[in-house]
Amino acid sequence: MAVFGVLAVLGLIVTGSWGRYDPTWSSLDTRPLPGWYDEAKLGIFIHWGIFSVPSYNNEWFWYQWKGSKVKNVVQYMDDNFRPDFTYADFAPGFTTEFFDPAEWADIIQASGARYVVLTSKHHEGFTNWPSKYSFNWNSMDNGPNRDLVGELGAAIRNNTTVRFGLYHSLFEWFHPLFLSDKASRFKTNNFVARKTMPELFEIVQRYKPEVVWSDGDWEAPDTYWNSTHFLAWLYNDSPVKDTVVTNDRWGAGIKCKHGDFYTCRDRYNPGKLQNHKFENAMTIDARSWGFRREAKLSDYLSIQKLIQTLVETVSCGGNMLMNVGPTKYGKIAPIFEERLRQMGEWLKLNGNAIYATRPWTHQNDTVSKYIWYTSSKSDTGLDVFAIYTRDITTATITLGAPIPTQKTQVLLLGNNKLLSWTHGATGGMVINISDIPFYEVKSQWAYAFRLTHLEN
Amino acid sequence: MAVFGVLAVLGLIVTGSWGRYDPTWSSLDTRPLPGWYDEAKLGIFIHWGIFSVPSYNNEWFWYQWKGSKVKNVVQYMDDNFRPDFTYADFAPGFTTEFFDPAEWADIIQASGARYVVLTSKHHEGFTNWPSKYSFNWNSMDNGPNRDLVGELGAAIRNNTTVRFGLYHSLFEWFHPLFLSDKASRFKTNNFVARKTMPELFEIVQRYKPEVVWSDGDWEAPDTYWNSTHFLAWLYNDSPVKDTVVTNDRWGAGIKCKHGDFYTCRDRYNPGKLQNHKFENAMTIDARSWGFRREAKLSDYLSIQKLIQTLVETVSCGGNMLMNVGPTKYGKIAPIFEERLRQMGEWLKLNGNAIYATRPWTHQNDTVSKYIWYTSSKSDTGLDVFAIYTRDITTATITLGAPIPTQKTQVLLLGNNKLLSWTHGATGGMVINISDIPFYEVKSQWAYAFRLTHLEN
Amino acid sequence: MAVFGVLAVLGLIVTGSWGRYDPTWSSLDTRPLPGWYDEAKLGIFIHWGIFSVPSYNNEWFWYQWKGSKVKNVVQYMDDNFRPDFTYADFAPGFTTEFFDPAEWADIIQASGARYVVLTSKHHEGFTNWPSKYSFNWNSMDNGPNRDLVGELGAAIRNNTTVRFGLYHSLFEWFHPLFLSDKASRFKTNNFVARKTMPELFEIVQRYKPEVVWSDGDWEAPDTYWNSTHFLAWLYNDSPVKDTVVTNDRWGAGIKCKHGDFYTCRDRYNPGKLQNHKFENAMTIDARSWGFRREAKLSDYLSIQKLIQTLVETVSCGGNMLMNVGPTKYGKIAPIFEERLRQMGEWLKLNGNAIYATRPWTHQNDTVSKYIWYTSSKSDTGLDVFAIYTRDITTATITLGAPIPTQKTQVLLLGNNKLLSWTHGATGGMVINISDIPFYEVKSQWAYAFRLTHLEN
Amino acid sequence: MAVFGVLAVLGLIVTGSWGRYDPTWSSLDTRPLPGWYDEAKLGIFIHWGIFSVPSYNNEWFWYQWKGSKVKNVVQYMDDNFRPDFTYADFAPGFTTEFFDPAEWADIIQASGARYVVLTSKHHEGFTNWPSKYSFNWNSMDNGPNRDLVGELGAAIRNNTTVRFGLYHSLFEWFHPLFLSDKASRFKTNNFVARKTMPELFEIVQRYKPEVVWSDGDWEAPDTYWNSTHFLAWLYNDSPVKDTVVTNDRWGAGIKCKHGDFYTCRDRYNPGKLQNHKFENAMTIDARSWGFRREAKLSDYLSIQKLIQTLVETVSCGGNMLMNVGPTKYGKIAPIFEERLRQMGEWLKLNGNAIYATRPWTHQNDTVSKYIWYTSSKSDTGLDVFAIYTRDITTATITLGAPIPTQKTQVLLLGNNKLLSWTHGATGGMVINISDIPFYEVKSQWAYAFRLTHLEN
Repeated sequence: MAVFGVLAVLGLIVTGSWGRYDPTWSSLDTRPLPGWYDEAKLGIFIHWGIFSVPSYNNEWFWYQWKGSKVKNVVQYMDDNFRPDFTYADFAPGFTTEFFDPAEWADIIQASGARYVVLTSKHHEGFTNWPSKYSFNWNSMDNGPNRDLVGELGAAIRNNTTVRFGLYHSLFEWFHPLFLSDKASRFKTNNFVARKTMPELFEIVQRYKPEVVWSDGDWEAPDTYWNSTHFLAWLYNDSPVKDTVVTNDRWGAGIKCKHGDFYTCRDRYNPGKLQNHKFENAMTIDARSWGFRREAKLSDYLSIQKLIQTLVETVSCGGNMLMNVGPTKYGKIAPIFEERLRQMGEWLKLNGNAIYATRPWTHQNDTVSKYIWYTSSKSDTGLDVFAIYTRDITTATITLGAPIPTQKTQVLLLGNNKLLSWTHGATGGMVINISDIPFYEVKSQWAYAFRLTHLEN
Repeated sequence: MAVFGVLAVLGLIVTGSWGRYDPTWSSLDTRPLPGWYDEAKLGIFIHWGIFSVPSYNNEWFWYQWKGSKVKNVVQYMDDNFRPDFTYADFAPGFTTEFFDPAEWADIIQASGARYVVLTSKHHEGFTNWPSKYSFNWNSMDNGPNRDLVGELGAAIRNNTTVRFGLYHSLFEWFHPLFLSDKASRFKTNNFVARKTMPELFEIVQRYKPEVVWSDGDWEAPDTYWNSTHFLAWLYNDSPVKDTVVTNDRWGAGIKCKHGDFYTCRDRYNPGKLQNHKFENAMTIDARSWGFRREAKLSDYLSIQKLIQTLVETVSCGGNMLMNVGPTKYGKIAPIFEERLRQMGEWLKLNGNAIYATRPWTHQNDTVSKYIWYTSSKSDTGLDVFAIYTRDITTATITLGAPIPTQKTQVLLLGNNKLLSWTHGATGGMVINISDIPFYEVKSQWAYAFRLTHLEN
Repeated sequence: MAVFGVLAVLGLIVTGSWGRYDPTWSSLDTRPLPGWYDEAKLGIFIHWGIFSVPSYNNEWFWYQWKGSKVKNVVQYMDDNFRPDFTYADFAPGFTTEFFDPAEWADIIQASGARYVVLTSKHHEGFTNWPSKYSFNWNSMDNGPNRDLVGELGAAIRNNTTVRFGLYHSLFEWFHPLFLSDKASRFKTNNFVARKTMPELFEIVQRYKPEVVWSDGDWEAPDTYWNSTHFLAWLYNDSPVKDTVVTNDRWGAGIKCKHGDFYTCRDRYNPGKLQNHKFENAMTIDARSWGFRREAKLSDYLSIQKLIQTLVETVSCGGNMLMNVGPTKYGKIAPIFEERLRQMGEWLKLNGNAIYATRPWTHQNDTVSKYIWYTSSKSDTGLDVFAIYTRDITTATITLGAPIPTQKTQVLLLGNNKLLSWTHGATGGMVINISDIPFYEVKSQWAYAFRLTHLEN
Repeated sequence: MAVFGVLAVLGLIVTGSWGRYDPTWSSLDTRPLPGWYDEAKLGIFIHWGIFSVPSYNNEWFWYQWKGSKVKNVVQYMDDNFRPDFTYADFAPGFTTEFFDPAEWADIIQASGARYVVLTSKHHEGFTNWPSKYSFNWNSMDNGPNRDLVGELGAAIRNNTTVRFGLYHSLFEWFHPLFLSDKASRFKTNNFVARKTMPELFEIVQRYKPEVVWSDGDWEAPDTYWNSTHFLAWLYNDSPVKDTVVTNDRWGAGIKCKHGDFYTCRDRYNPGKLQNHKFENAMTIDARSWGFRREAKLSDYLSIQKLIQTLVETVSCGGNMLMNVGPTKYGKIAPIFEERLRQMGEWLKLNGNAIYATRPWTHQNDTVSKYIWYTSSKSDTGLDVFAIYTRDITTATITLGAPIPTQKTQVLLLGNNKLLSWTHGATGGMVINISDIPFYEVKSQWAYAFRLTHLEN
């Protein structure tokens, strides 16, 4: 059954407006990226679902248990559950009794992020909203007895300036219709026609996400998923057509080639300038997207490491989507809250070097390691931000890339005194750090120096 | 989407064999009833599902809790569960750890029944087999972690002479696609196309039931359900086309009008001869089809009452489908087992008056109450069975309907001495019961007298 | 610590009344048996506790799992529970939500029993009342959140003429204080001083049971248990001193030697006259005292077998204590209810041959098997009851033991016509059964013939 | 029953060694404090028990629910549990599946603490070891199926240099024997004789704790608790008599008066020099000792606040016992782990200003706020440590208390350059902070300045 059938069934085809974008990549690729996204730089990713109940190893728990049979996961089940326990039996444990969406909204706002992306449905197929297409495997029929997507969306919209987005997995590890389509080498697409597409339309129409973050695409081509038809509708006729952005996970071979922004691989931090907007989707818990009860402190990235990753990503033209995994009882664990608030604290001082900046001529310095650049236009020309992302251990910092003029000024963000500098031995400039008394340094996580009046 | 679409998708259309029956009632109604069914007289009905977990009130538990809000059901939930408990949360409790299909087969065989009908899926939508169309709401993904339909089917076929049938509910109380079709006044039929029909094909192809016992039809017309298309396939091309029988619950207005046998309403016991084969589907627990933990002894029909109902039913041309509700842990409770074995005991003595009989000229006697007739052809002409279904309290039994001849002989089944009789005052005959010493009466639950050499 | 210490602590010594019985068997044995008990003949035993939660194998479940490691019990746990599941973890499952003590009282009354004995505490140590000595291992702190003993006691007293008794296990399989006393070869008796005795005093004072049915005595001598001190108090000063009866399980070597009535071994049915009042404690489920979910119909004794056992027991001077095991949700399963009501039905017809009877000269007949005798004084001398406990298959019954006179009359209880009889070939008498039309025989489970005017 | 009885029963009286301390406070108070304790300065407190299962509000959950009926706690239960749920029903949820005692030991060692105190039993009465006196309400019979005390004790001893201690609650909120003693105005002491004392002896003998941290004493006098007898045994004859220390919670009116160290009230931070060794028992989660799932980041004390409290406490002669509440699944949550490792990090740099120090003449400075002093003897006389516990915002720090000499030297711990200083305007001295380049300041949480060669 063609996707048109589905569209017709769902009453989604609006005659007439069908026109701006064709359901082809060549047409879709012509769409300009909505400006808010490029300026946002930081988003918060939230992985929440039934995997938050076992809350062990990572959010691929079900697959690792029953699919690839990862040893420690199988052992965990053997040690802690009756032999016939099924994954669906975890659902009643998804209690979410402490889920206060306003509290989440407050934490997310405080992080300095400009958008948030919640898993509406991960590969397990459990929908965090009461989907018409996932009977008795959704957050209203099972466990929470709540519309998690709806509640968070409303809180974000009512309480913050953050934009609301949704992650959605095209495939489901164990859905029999998908497995059957796959067995046919994707000659049938019952799963897409009855599950994936109806769900995608449902969440866009009902929750109006400004990010549609697709995943789980890799096993089948975009033609199987009917991705271009969905995107054409999304861009032409959906309620979010003007502001929505989508990523690039829409079929085997599409990643890093098509889409509003590229995510390429997880934790994509290329280290050099990209010619297309990208997003570095990464995790605070280095080993998992979903909450892991067994995680140790050392598994969580330090705030220094997080800022460093943000800086590197933004410097190369990307956004960072920083992931937290809430608990089954509905809290963002304090260690995550701490990282988010620390990030917000740093951005409050250093936001000018991040938000709405553009990559500079250089991404990192030619002489000093750990220096990354961003830039933005100002009244006085181009402000360049040199951001040092490690502990400083010397009295001076040497920059090879900037060519100073006589008027060049250097300021540590968060500090109001200009720093002295000298010309470097082989060009560039040497900033004198020791000008700043230590008790006037507001943050030691990373240092953003604003350089103005440079040689163009 | 037309059912042909589904058939095509499922690869079920066998060109060429599409011919004997059209998907119209006028064509389907021409099919002769497979003989085994008329001769069987007694079947066992089994209601088993997630409703067996709360196991309270009856198998409509979910609807009574959330739909019609029956007071004691709502109270039961309030008293015994956390407020956010959902119906799906019952699934892990469906443990079936003691389910031994061979044991069930043994009990069913011992009951004297000639067929068994298991709920493959009740109105709750939970499939007792691993359906492709009921992801995470079936007996393999949830609770039992077993193919209940498959296991019972195999045991019945391997261990007994009983035929295996399946009950299937067309509608589901709370399935969102059904509710959505209903909201459209059944102008859409997504639910049928994606759920009902694929499931019906699936169970017929996989489990080859010789009874397809449909239910849950009443809210929508047969055209919505695509019933006639399914039946045409069932009769023409299915693996059970030669022996399968179906009932009459295939759409609003169809009941008691079309189908291999009519069930009309539950516990249909018309008391007079019917002009179409019918089935009296009734329950041993007078108040429920599913197991109820709170049931008292007085809620269970006595064996006398059960035999009486069987006799009345058979006398009028029907079969009786006698229901048991197994427990969530997989046992047929001893009180049910007792009734089944008692029935088998009685049928061992009196089976000649029941199996393969035909209704007689009279169904019940013109003079004595509680006498019901059956008949069968024998070497000596027509054997008529007069079955007395109450406690006998007098020395003689007067029959108004039979016209004796001089050669007429009377025998109490299970006993080998002919009984004396005299002509009745106003015709008929008077049987002398006191000829039989009490210690030679094999069963006092009901008395079947065989009358031979009657006037035609 | 001596039991006097405990008594003092509990304020139980009533000076002055300490006098009638000494805490020695020779003194205690002089107490006359309260008359009600001998006349009662039938009691109902109820085994209910945490073992009703696993409800598998039998009420020794815990010991079989962790003590003797019975194979199928260990396997059951391995198959159905997480490895670290403990027995105490079963407690939350003891929900008793359907426990309606008035309903139980009604069923017990209907059974014809004259007393009931509930397990207040079995060997698992769980007290079915809120004991001060069993913190967090009792029916108020765990699972039921109810005083089960108190509720049943009140219902029995308010709604019936049945007397209320309590079973109590002296030892507990796994109580560390008991194990420690045992390890000392019972030189210490901390367990008795702190647990057993305080509990016994507590239940007697609070619930006033008229039967104190002791068990679990066999591992230690009565001196360890302080049994004679408890019994002296019970007979002299307790609130039930005038009517209470106790059994004989008060220490190793005491059974069948001391006590108001002897139970000797379980299912004690000696088949000949006993010189001391005894009780045949037996079970309707032949294999367990506690409810077993896996039980089959064939595991339950038929009503014929139950009546036969009652008759044999009473004939030899005993009472029968017939056990039922209720479910964890608080119901007496219908199969048990059926047996109890059937027994009551039979006793309604035949009670004169049972209640308040005395053993006759002969217990069973010298010629016919399956005939057992009881007797009672009447206006016309001694009525002798010859009870035939099998299916009758012949026209006459020959009795060897009774010596008829010319005035001897024979009546089948429940029937109002005298039966003819003749003198037997070698003495005794031959009763003509065929006098009774079969439709006048009220019960075929067992036949009680009243013989009057016999030769003394 | 006198405690001697218990001692005799338990075989604990060792004749002959009964001599050094009498069971009187005047005698017990003469015992010198074991030196290790005074030098340790920092301990880790661990609150773990069944309260870690609801893990809501705080460790007084049971009492707040059923005793004082705190509104939000009652509401929480109403919202999330069936009405008859009991506190004991939480026990199966205490799964501890991730409890790795070696990991805990590593974290505790890393914190810089020199001792650890685990709740062996809190007011709920649940023993974290398999107590003989708490049948079916302990960590082996319920939930964990493990000896938590034993496992942690072994790991601490095998893997660290930290000393192992145990918290123990004398009373239990709802133990019926305690309530009964209380109802008698503590004229009976059955609870103490049978529960409290046997347990205390049991844990000391089995686990050899070097801290016995008593609590729950306040409702009854020490004579009820038999505290002095226990302590005399502990000091004279126990396996830890030479090194054990105990606190002061041994009966109403004893707190802050008797005991090896005083704890007075929770979070005791007197701010001035104490004339008896004390301990500031406080919590990282400002609102609870047990783990709270609903805790927010702002509920956790910052590392700055924790160091500040440690410094103030040590300065006045106390130790700080810093509490963490592990989860029911056996992990120390990362936020706790972070605080502990941060503390260890700071102590690694600044330990000389804390461990084995003695209070100085002044506790806090006379001029500058936020300066606290400690001291220790060194080769050059007395080293005084002035510890600044806030963010520094000025170039100089003025100290009023120290009287410098010409030889006086000032060093920031963790830094190897002497700082310049000048005489203060009104005495004292002014330290020049700006001598230190900011990139040489190793920690900004608190600054410990070592002053040598001061005027005595």
